[in-house]
Amino acid sequence: MSVRTPKTVISVDLTKSPRTQPVLHNRWHPDLPAVSSVQPGEVFRVECVDWTGGQIGNNDSADDVLNLNLSVCHYLSGPVKVEGAEPGDYLEVEILDVQPLHGHEWGYTGIFDVKNGGGFLHEHFPRAAKAVWDFEGIYASSRHIPGVRFPGLIHPGIIGTAPSQELLEKWNQREAALVAKDPNRVPALAYLPNDTGSFLGALESQPSVARAKGAEAARTIPPREHGGNCDIKNLSRGSKVWFPVYVPGANLSVGDLHFSQGDGEISVRKL
Amino acid sequence: MSVRTPKTVISVDLTKSPRTQPVLHNRWHPDLPAVSSVQPGEVFRVECVDWTGGQIGNNDSADDVLNLNLSVCHYLSGPVKVEGAEPGDYLEVEILDVQPLHGHEWGYTGIFDVKNGGGFLHEHFPRAAKAVWDFEGIYASSRHIPGVRFPGLIHPGIIGTAPSQELLEKWNQREAALVAKDPNRVPALAYLPNDTGSFLGALESQPSVARAKGAEAARTIPPREHGGNCDIKNLSRGSKVWFPVYVPGANLSVGDLHFSQGDGEISVRKL
Amino acid sequence: MSVRTPKTVISVDLTKSPRTQPVLHNRWHPDLPAVSSVQPGEVFRVECVDWTGGQIGNNDSADDVLNLNLSVCHYLSGPVKVEGAEPGDYLEVEILDVQPLHGHEWGYTGIFDVKNGGGFLHEHFPRAAKAVWDFEGIYASSRHIPGVRFPGLIHPGIIGTAPSQELLEKWNQREAALVAKDPNRVPALAYLPNDTGSFLGALESQPSVARAKGAEAARTIPPREHGGNCDIKNLSRGSKVWFPVYVPGANLSVGDLHFSQGDGEISVRKL
Amino acid sequence: MSVRTPKTVISVDLTKSPRTQPVLHNRWHPDLPAVSSVQPGEVFRVECVDWTGGQIGNNDSADDVLNLNLSVCHYLSGPVKVEGAEPGDYLEVEILDVQPLHGHEWGYTGIFDVKNGGGFLHEHFPRAAKAVWDFEGIYASSRHIPGVRFPGLIHPGIIGTAPSQELLEKWNQREAALVAKDPNRVPALAYLPNDTGSFLGALESQPSVARAKGAEAARTIPPREHGGNCDIKNLSRGSKVWFPVYVPGANLSVGDLHFSQGDGEISVRKL
Repeated sequence: MSVRTPKTVISVDLTKSPRTQPVLHNRWHPDLPAVSSVQPGEVFRVECVDWTGGQIGNNDSADDVLNLNLSVCHYLSGPVKVEGAEPGDYLEVEILDVQPLHGHEWGYTGIFDVKNGGGFLHEHFPRAAKAVWDFEGIYASSRHIPGVRFPGLIHPGIIGTAPSQELLEKWNQREAALVAKDPNRVPALAYLPNDTGSFLGALESQPSVARAKGAEAARTIPPREHGGNCDIKNLSRGSKVWFPVYVPGANLSVGDLHFSQGDGEISVRKL
Repeated sequence: MSVRTPKTVISVDLTKSPRTQPVLHNRWHPDLPAVSSVQPGEVFRVECVDWTGGQIGNNDSADDVLNLNLSVCHYLSGPVKVEGAEPGDYLEVEILDVQPLHGHEWGYTGIFDVKNGGGFLHEHFPRAAKAVWDFEGIYASSRHIPGVRFPGLIHPGIIGTAPSQELLEKWNQREAALVAKDPNRVPALAYLPNDTGSFLGALESQPSVARAKGAEAARTIPPREHGGNCDIKNLSRGSKVWFPVYVPGANLSVGDLHFSQGDGEISVRKL
Repeated sequence: MSVRTPKTVISVDLTKSPRTQPVLHNRWHPDLPAVSSVQPGEVFRVECVDWTGGQIGNNDSADDVLNLNLSVCHYLSGPVKVEGAEPGDYLEVEILDVQPLHGHEWGYTGIFDVKNGGGFLHEHFPRAAKAVWDFEGIYASSRHIPGVRFPGLIHPGIIGTAPSQELLEKWNQREAALVAKDPNRVPALAYLPNDTGSFLGALESQPSVARAKGAEAARTIPPREHGGNCDIKNLSRGSKVWFPVYVPGANLSVGDLHFSQGDGEISVRKL
Repeated sequence: MSVRTPKTVISVDLTKSPRTQPVLHNRWHPDLPAVSSVQPGEVFRVECVDWTGGQIGNNDSADDVLNLNLSVCHYLSGPVKVEGAEPGDYLEVEILDVQPLHGHEWGYTGIFDVKNGGGFLHEHFPRAAKAVWDFEGIYASSRHIPGVRFPGLIHPGIIGTAPSQELLEKWNQREAALVAKDPNRVPALAYLPNDTGSFLGALESQPSVARAKGAEAARTIPPREHGGNCDIKNLSRGSKVWFPVYVPGANLSVGDLHFSQGDGEISVRKL
């Protein structure tokens, strides 16, 4: 009898550009085709790249944070189709474990430069900064922050189902109205659809379609009705979460894996 | 700057016989040469085979448990030399994580047949039995025990340093005296040195030496002053343990990995 | 609207002899009348004395351990009748919290003298010993064991329902047969019914009845089908446990509260 | 030898007005005299009233929340002098346990009316609302929120040391400057000193002094350098926290006990 090793439904290659890997995408859109499928109840494994798609290096310079191209973030893995899921269902997802890819046991904390987004405390820490963390089993330590080591609550920052066209339009109208309240605000009150940097995975084989969809696809910054950028530190191994299903197959995507996080992401200036 | 991936100091090949892999051994002896070395404070990874060296299959028959060759148990990985450790020192070992090897995410529970050791409740459960567990992240479930799933406290059953010749002789005298109290007892009060089944890793390239050492090397059944068959369920990731050092380099070995265990091993009849 | 403070269904007086308090008893018997009652689903509080009924003092001498009268142990609080419970039902008990009585925030560890029962390691520690622990919130520390402080897993050592007459007779026959296997063994393989020291709570107002029942009532040493001397460290606040019901009203009793315990009670020599 | 029951250094009477109890105060001021003292390392117990001083009833109406007098909040217990503590020291406080007072095992969640402060989601929930929670050991349930029960992370919302006169003046200047940025903002950017509602505990026996100090004493709304309104859910039993000492004796005060809280207090609209 064969070993029932959890099936890896999405594999990534960290040595290649994310833009060559159709299992990745960085926008939410109902027409993004699923790149893999699972049965209800099936145990499966998804590999992910970091949210920037490899823009941040394991080195001692924060220039990569300073110059980070935010228009391509966040790269997610998926969508994964769940056979039989239909709009109106709820999809139960249980996170069985989250582990770094073998040979890539590291991560980073970055503080954004005020010239590029800025962090929550940008008045006090205006310059880009970076700490690289080495993962040592359940612990992380950093050569950039001597004397500190802590166990993580490893979890996906972003996980969610695909929106329907109707829901996508609702998002776009809602967020456009929000931006209109204070159009010149820095940072903006919302990031509206923008094809610049957009990467729509399997749809990219049809460039004209991809560009048209990219112009209306939702950005990955906020959490929305479908889940999305949850950033919940306790959404870790052992958690169950229920997502509404808006499209046939549910089309689950996941990414932005965190080794650990506080109550929010204080190194990033959000709205 | 290169990634500081934890160095794998011992690799095993689950497709091959343990007796072809000099990084394994199944007896404790001071003259067993180290097969790898680490610096104090270094983070490293050791791969292990199961305690039987692959005698138990992922199938639905308990015949392998019934016919298990106990004379070759337990296969351990090591010894790993710790540079600078000297007799009289204490070796601090911190267990940073324990994970199944990729593609081999399964384990088993076996109840020994009364004809082959027997279990703790052998009067009630005299026949060999086996349940195969599939690991699903932090959980295990078994096709042989429907409806049960639980998170494990993964840990090494056996971990310890090499004995000195003096300590080995003390063990052998002590255990011989114990057996002498009731020589015909089933199970025996102790398992004395016996070269049958002995495998002394790197020493096996010198068969006559290996056979001579095998005749006096300590079996791996009980825990002793050096650690050994601890079977402590909380000796899991995040634990620190201190072992006495009896030989230069400490010569740490580890094996008999458990996904989970209660307060003792009720499926095995020990003394 | 009045505050729904949990109703205290059994109160004890630590300044008085347990033998003057009919809410206590130290044997299991089906005819012991309930001293209080609760509704299914009701939250209630039970006060308890220590298992010895106050024989151990908060002082620096172990003479009280040496001379402990074991024939009166363990004093339990109850029985509490659960309205509507009938034989054949299961009684679900949830332990919502366990706390020391205000003004009595202390406990003790005692090692029995070989002359009076002995401890598990009586060959190494033959003499009576005692450590008094002061409870400091979730922690305990002892003036007799300097430098140690630890948080407890507070729990009842004994909790169970009353046996039916049929079950009581089954116990008595079973344990008599066990003793008969080795009648002179020290310690005995079981403690058979013995009215010496027996205290049957509300039944004591009828001395002749109490003495007759005391001669057949079960001792409190082992756990049995009804629960009893469970000594499970995790049977703590937050736990639910299901007990069989053998008599109308279930007749739950509880006592032998522990601040903390290991995997078993190593300071006591049981069978 | 007497039992070392933790000394209760501050007792409150929940049946009386907080304004008759000189062990309470609702402003921070360096000249507030200590009402009790402890030795370094001593284990002690402090009793507290709820933050409103008893304005909220265990009933089914939210009128008390609607009409809550915020000018008297929060009532704290203290100050407790720590013998030998001097400005420049750090005071280590370990929270050994937090429990409801016997007979008062209940609490409440209140949503502020927009007419009286408002809650975080006041646009969605503009009206005063209240849920009373009954404490059942480690759990709380509410007749106003059927079907919900959860274990709490019980902790003090407010704990801190007394400020020095210099620090108090620094606070007052800093917060006045903050208010000046947007003087008409609702809610205000800070609550400046205001003797209305002020209660200065032991100082109230000298009304003219109390009124003068009350006019400059700091409100209890924000956390500041000395601790104060921390509202940290994990500052629970088992936690250690270090506070700067600004006055001789440190003068520790504590109150605003919470049975449980999320990441912040979403039912209250703060700045």
